[in-house]
Amino acid sequence: MMINITLPDGSVRPYESGVSSMDIAKSISEGLARKVLAATVNNQVVDASSPIDADASLKLLTWDDKEAKSTFWHSSAHLMAEAVQSVFPHAKFWVGPAVDRGFYYDIDLGDTKMSEDDLLVLEKKMNEFAKQNNAFIKKAMPKDEAIQYFTEKGDEYKLDLLSNLTDGEISFYTQGSFTDLCRGPHIPSTGHIKAIKLTSIAGAYWKGDEKNKQLTRIYGITFPNQKELDEYVLMLEEAKKRDHRKLGKELGIFTFDDMVGQGLPLWLPNGGIIIEELERLAKETESAAGYKRVVTPHIAKEEMYLTSGHLPYYADSMFPPMELDGTKYYLRAMNCPHHHKIFDAEPKSYKDLPFRIAEYGTCYRYEQSGELFGLMRVRCLHMNDAHIYCSKEQFAEEFRAVNEMYLKYFKIFGIDKYVMRLSLHESSKRGQKYIDEPVLWEQTESMVRQTLIESNIPFIEVQDEAAFYGPKIDVQIWSAIGREFTLATNQVDFNSGNKFKLSYTNQNNSTDVPLIIHRAPLGTHERFIGFLLEHYAGKFPTWIAPMQVKILPISDKFMDYAKQVLSALKAVGVRAEIDDRNEKIGKKIRDTELMKVPYMLVIGEKEMNESQVSIRRQGKGDMGAKALTEFVQEISKEIEDRIGE
Amino acid sequence: MMINITLPDGSVRPYESGVSSMDIAKSISEGLARKVLAATVNNQVVDASSPIDADASLKLLTWDDKEAKSTFWHSSAHLMAEAVQSVFPHAKFWVGPAVDRGFYYDIDLGDTKMSEDDLLVLEKKMNEFAKQNNAFIKKAMPKDEAIQYFTEKGDEYKLDLLSNLTDGEISFYTQGSFTDLCRGPHIPSTGHIKAIKLTSIAGAYWKGDEKNKQLTRIYGITFPNQKELDEYVLMLEEAKKRDHRKLGKELGIFTFDDMVGQGLPLWLPNGGIIIEELERLAKETESAAGYKRVVTPHIAKEEMYLTSGHLPYYADSMFPPMELDGTKYYLRAMNCPHHHKIFDAEPKSYKDLPFRIAEYGTCYRYEQSGELFGLMRVRCLHMNDAHIYCSKEQFAEEFRAVNEMYLKYFKIFGIDKYVMRLSLHESSKRGQKYIDEPVLWEQTESMVRQTLIESNIPFIEVQDEAAFYGPKIDVQIWSAIGREFTLATNQVDFNSGNKFKLSYTNQNNSTDVPLIIHRAPLGTHERFIGFLLEHYAGKFPTWIAPMQVKILPISDKFMDYAKQVLSALKAVGVRAEIDDRNEKIGKKIRDTELMKVPYMLVIGEKEMNESQVSIRRQGKGDMGAKALTEFVQEISKEIEDRIGE
Repeated sequence: MMINITLPDGSVRPYESGVSSMDIAKSISEGLARKVLAATVNNQVVDASSPIDADASLKLLTWDDKEAKSTFWHSSAHLMAEAVQSVFPHAKFWVGPAVDRGFYYDIDLGDTKMSEDDLLVLEKKMNEFAKQNNAFIKKAMPKDEAIQYFTEKGDEYKLDLLSNLTDGEISFYTQGSFTDLCRGPHIPSTGHIKAIKLTSIAGAYWKGDEKNKQLTRIYGITFPNQKELDEYVLMLEEAKKRDHRKLGKELGIFTFDDMVGQGLPLWLPNGGIIIEELERLAKETESAAGYKRVVTPHIAKEEMYLTSGHLPYYADSMFPPMELDGTKYYLRAMNCPHHHKIFDAEPKSYKDLPFRIAEYGTCYRYEQSGELFGLMRVRCLHMNDAHIYCSKEQFAEEFRAVNEMYLKYFKIFGIDKYVMRLSLHESSKRGQKYIDEPVLWEQTESMVRQTLIESNIPFIEVQDEAAFYGPKIDVQIWSAIGREFTLATNQVDFNSGNKFKLSYTNQNNSTDVPLIIHRAPLGTHERFIGFLLEHYAGKFPTWIAPMQVKILPISDKFMDYAKQVLSALKAVGVRAEIDDRNEKIGKKIRDTELMKVPYMLVIGEKEMNESQVSIRRQGKGDMGAKALTEFVQEISKEIEDRIGE
Repeated sequence: MMINITLPDGSVRPYESGVSSMDIAKSISEGLARKVLAATVNNQVVDASSPIDADASLKLLTWDDKEAKSTFWHSSAHLMAEAVQSVFPHAKFWVGPAVDRGFYYDIDLGDTKMSEDDLLVLEKKMNEFAKQNNAFIKKAMPKDEAIQYFTEKGDEYKLDLLSNLTDGEISFYTQGSFTDLCRGPHIPSTGHIKAIKLTSIAGAYWKGDEKNKQLTRIYGITFPNQKELDEYVLMLEEAKKRDHRKLGKELGIFTFDDMVGQGLPLWLPNGGIIIEELERLAKETESAAGYKRVVTPHIAKEEMYLTSGHLPYYADSMFPPMELDGTKYYLRAMNCPHHHKIFDAEPKSYKDLPFRIAEYGTCYRYEQSGELFGLMRVRCLHMNDAHIYCSKEQFAEEFRAVNEMYLKYFKIFGIDKYVMRLSLHESSKRGQKYIDEPVLWEQTESMVRQTLIESNIPFIEVQDEAAFYGPKIDVQIWSAIGREFTLATNQVDFNSGNKFKLSYTNQNNSTDVPLIIHRAPLGTHERFIGFLLEHYAGKFPTWIAPMQVKILPISDKFMDYAKQVLSALKAVGVRAEIDDRNEKIGKKIRDTELMKVPYMLVIGEKEMNESQVSIRRQGKGDMGAKALTEFVQEISKEIEDRIGE
């Protein structure tokens, strides 16, 4: 029987039923086939060797695809397990998933303690097994046979996994001498794995529960070539120097305190300045774009979140309720319901639309304490949030304007690399995972796609990842050292309007429900400032730097003139101070460099007599002398224009 | 036996033991004696007729004293009860306290429903009984006799009160034909009450519990002369027009929503603008005064509030805890503990002091739902908060600077009448109600007093009302129509430094604990904006007005020029918009007046041809025509200088 295979470019090719993705790749080009790691068939990732027996859409996955990387790293976890088994034959294996970058495996080594040196031994073994280019071979087994197999083997971990599977048939994968219970998919063979680095060992309680036994977790990463591994290692080293937790402490940006609680940053005065500057930028930008600002409480009654649908489904990510006067109050995990109430507070007509309201709303989300990480994973989020209520006719223009606001910000912060990930719905899941509004889905998805194309924004499309209530865009950005961050999401919502019974009088004097855009271009202060610390390595551009100018008199003799310089700078709002310590100028310069202050003004006899300042620029050294008035003018302009470098 | 009586001016006079305050008043002057309503003996308010039998400090209380007013109104409640008893002989009486302004009595009238008309009847009766000038006569009775008396009378209310008294002897007060169980004190006789107004009737559940019977609550107010009552009634009428709840709705400032919860205001876009302007003012002022801004979470662990001492004592005023990972988290009711943690985050030396940190911190306090009132009594408070950590040597100067910041704000907002209420400790209660630091109490109290005197600030002193940890100042202000508001408190704290183990290295290289000043000159947004709405009757000065200029083209023909005017205003940051409705100019003007926009610019043929605008000023009418450029310049200056009128 022949089947039709639809390729991503829309072309349709006939094949014999039972053909595999790899066969199809080969039929296109041998070169391509050599690079194929897996495939998506009807949006599901499968082994390249899986037979296809009905008409289907196919995408061949190579290293450039996110799903392929994930599969590659999952296979690498199996490869590492093979190495562990060969070195520690008594090891028992729990789970070994791919993570954001790389993979890990949780292993019970009995009484054996593993050291960093062991990692090198394992790496060597892995390289050896990779060179053998063993295929990943899938085998199915009835569940009862599988149970018998692991019972005989005495492997309580895999038996536990099996007990939670409802599948009648269980699949196993074998490569070389290692076999693992696994759903797959996997890459064709170990030979694709050309560069290997095991990065760390950690303890991990079985199932994350500290009452359970502690297993050994080994983290690693692999690549299809040595060059990418080298780059990655270099990036890691640079990232370590730029670690936002380290810089945040050194520069007095933020801190944590045990009595306040985990994941709840306290922003120190220098962090307060950065926050103020970011908020000023957002307020200016949003005011110019016709947003109005509102202020709403951080709590609401249970009824609010039952109406929005966050309860009970999202309850695990919310803080537990406070019971007051017989009513449950929740700390908010998102600002939208409060904003809907603002929209609803006064009657609206089409003349009031688009109604754009913005707030630096603080939200609280419960994250497991083990998941908390510096500013990147927190429980308190200061969000640059806004909601736009508009008609269908206004939607495209509003969405375009939001995207352009992102681009404006990227430019200001020197973010050169970014991608918008357009998450679409899956039509077969309408009425379950997605609201059942086929026309609205089609309209909004194509409008969103169109605005991205028109704005010339790089984007990728992903199926079946939309929000319940509409398509969304996840904004990914890369820091100066090439690390990827998810900045924010940008969502279309044609459901909450109904849920909250929001309406406006349209031009025909009848009633319509507004479309809603949820947007947060600067994400949260927590994540964005964390990103900026790494991106700038703490060397903030002048406009956002907590201290902008340090005045360094060579000796006390020049204090009066130093004070004049200070006043001149303060008069135009520059953040400046005098280093009046009784220290050598060299030491003053070194200390100021450490605090990454953009400008140092060295003040001595000549400067005083000629009303000048000698300028040292952070990272650039001596810039020569200038008239004080000229410097004041230049730095004011640099700050006002928010110059990036 | 002779005793020594110390008068407020410090003079000491000898009297026979058993002398009453009234006797002493008479010994000074008959005129004074006629005005005496009660007295404070050793800081306790007592009847003017109470005998004094040991050395004591004495203050004779007249109508000008807060305590005298309170006594006057409590006696008036008894007078009202007498009238009620005479009209409704079956009435049973629960409690009748003085309130902020006036008094009420909760009464069980059985099946009788009282109407507004009955109030007039009661007022008449009260006037009649007042003219009888009956003395308030105190009589003691053993508790068992009192119980017997009320049991026979069948008065379950007074029996309930008695059951909660631990006193062996119970006191009764009789005036005319009415006797009430009462601790007193009272004014000498009913004749002092010269002007009476019963203001309203309401239902009130017995003991505030809705499961209990509903009693009738009658509110009233009285004065020692008709003029003050007339002024009060006038003020009430004006206050009704200026009701912040009414104006807040009309002007789109704030709203409440059932799903969010009682006492939790949602600030609408126009309120958002006022908040922004207030915060900008505070940030500018505080930045110039050397404050640094911080940002802290709204929650903290139980341990934080056990350390601060707010738990368990203050628990009733806090929201109930959220239990997370086995720890209790509380929504904060005050910002200080978080700020202490910021102080503590980095080591401090004397060079870092005074360390002043400010935050618009949002706090949550539990108020009983019956107590909630518009913006005046809320559960969510956006507080203009800051804490100053300083050495003892720096304290006076810092405290003075804070007071002057208050004065600066008063000037900006045209607050002409204000008083600072200096609350001092009571030395006999050190170690119980007050921390046991005699030297620090003496030092700080006299420093605070001195700074008030030096700054020429009107203030009154009150004994035994300090905070546990130091003296405090309550700032009372009066709105344009003469209503009193408590704006904020200003506190000295020499205790929290120890509790939180805060320290700094002093000049001798040893360790000291900082003094802390708690201050919030603009109070909370909620209370202050509520005050401003009444104070300005919604007619905000231009700098803070949500909409500053409305451009009113006479017809569509002038829309292009109207848009030019709009751009010119927007270019300098003026909040302006065009009324582009197809309406007559008269209607446009009337509608704009209702929204209390400071400036209207009427645009017609002449204005367009001559690049002018015809100006109408809110409340002042036509101000003539001016060149557009001139108007833009003038209004910019008015806004920049925050001109009050």
